[in-house]
Amino acid sequence: MSEDTEAARAERHAQRMARKKEVVDRKIAEAQEEKGVFLILTGNGKGKSSSGFGMVARALGHGMQVGIVQFIKGQFATGEEAFFRGQDNVQYHVMGEGYTWETQDREKDVEAARDAWAHARDMLRDPNVDLVLLDELHIALKYQYLDVAEVLEELANRPPMQHVITTGRAAPKAMIEAADTVSEIGVVKHAFQAGIKAQKGIEL
Amino acid sequence: MSEDTEAARAERHAQRMARKKEVVDRKIAEAQEEKGVFLILTGNGKGKSSSGFGMVARALGHGMQVGIVQFIKGQFATGEEAFFRGQDNVQYHVMGEGYTWETQDREKDVEAARDAWAHARDMLRDPNVDLVLLDELHIALKYQYLDVAEVLEELANRPPMQHVITTGRAAPKAMIEAADTVSEIGVVKHAFQAGIKAQKGIEL
Repeated sequence: MSEDTEAARAERHAQRMARKKEVVDRKIAEAQEEKGVFLILTGNGKGKSSSGFGMVARALGHGMQVGIVQFIKGQFATGEEAFFRGQDNVQYHVMGEGYTWETQDREKDVEAARDAWAHARDMLRDPNVDLVLLDELHIALKYQYLDVAEVLEELANRPPMQHVITTGRAAPKAMIEAADTVSEIGVVKHAFQAGIKAQKGIEL
Repeated sequence: MSEDTEAARAERHAQRMARKKEVVDRKIAEAQEEKGVFLILTGNGKGKSSSGFGMVARALGHGMQVGIVQFIKGQFATGEEAFFRGQDNVQYHVMGEGYTWETQDREKDVEAARDAWAHARDMLRDPNVDLVLLDELHIALKYQYLDVAEVLEELANRPPMQHVITTGRAAPKAMIEAADTVSEIGVVKHAFQAGIKAQKGIEL
């Protein structure tokens, strides 16, 4: 019996995989519009910024030009900066100083966010930049340091093949409506809640 | 009135941020256990592998040693490989050939997965490796190409300060129970569904 079962199992597996391949092939054939994609990474879970930076790495692996603006500076942003700043094909801008709970000064926060946005805008107007990562943009929109309508207009008018990724909790509804792809990262559990210290280089 | 409102708004903002800082500072003070973290990135949304690779970039930015095993090879994995393979402080292994719907041969799939796992095991036994990324491991567990219990035992016995990230849809329940941090990436919407072609270097 066991040999029979093994053969039957292999056969079922092959059939299942063949069906899967059909579905995937058909979907690929159907999806033929070529254009730059606007991707949002939001939610309360770990990994939104990391995901954006991973996509940067992938794009660089394909020889693409990448622009990065980080809308927050803090102890948690330094690893990416150390790694990506100065790499070939990378323009990198980090907001001058941290904001929100570290500064507690709204006017300075607005100024810092607007300065970072000016750098983002330059990238969003440059057809040589294939991918723009606006890391932690959503927090600046949530606190109204930046105007959502202004950001959306700039995104709508960017070069047609340019990809944009925005990250951060609480993406505004208008941004989600405008995006092509939206991933929401939820917390199932978190080491921090269990009393494990956030650690250099990883902060998992 | 408007000046008064502006001042009141700034004051409310400062108070809110001060409370936020208190909460964050207290949580940081409480979380003092130092150990390697086991992080799972799962769910059906875009960005699981990218998130893992972004964490690799961050770790490299801090001068850490990283080991990467990709349990699937395909058109979607080449950007990361091109970028990270050969970087300083990186050990990189990609499964010899793709599996599941491309090969439709269970025995070959099992063999390929077990070979990749042997590389992963070497990394999980090496205290010089600070972070191990097992990309798309969950699919190999789901199809029982690898044994969950064997994987969990290896993870439990790894060097105490070593971090591990596993990615892929459908993380097994036993893995989620064992992990310190679990993020689930959900699809809010996807460009592919709207008929936009997956594109070189980005596949958003």
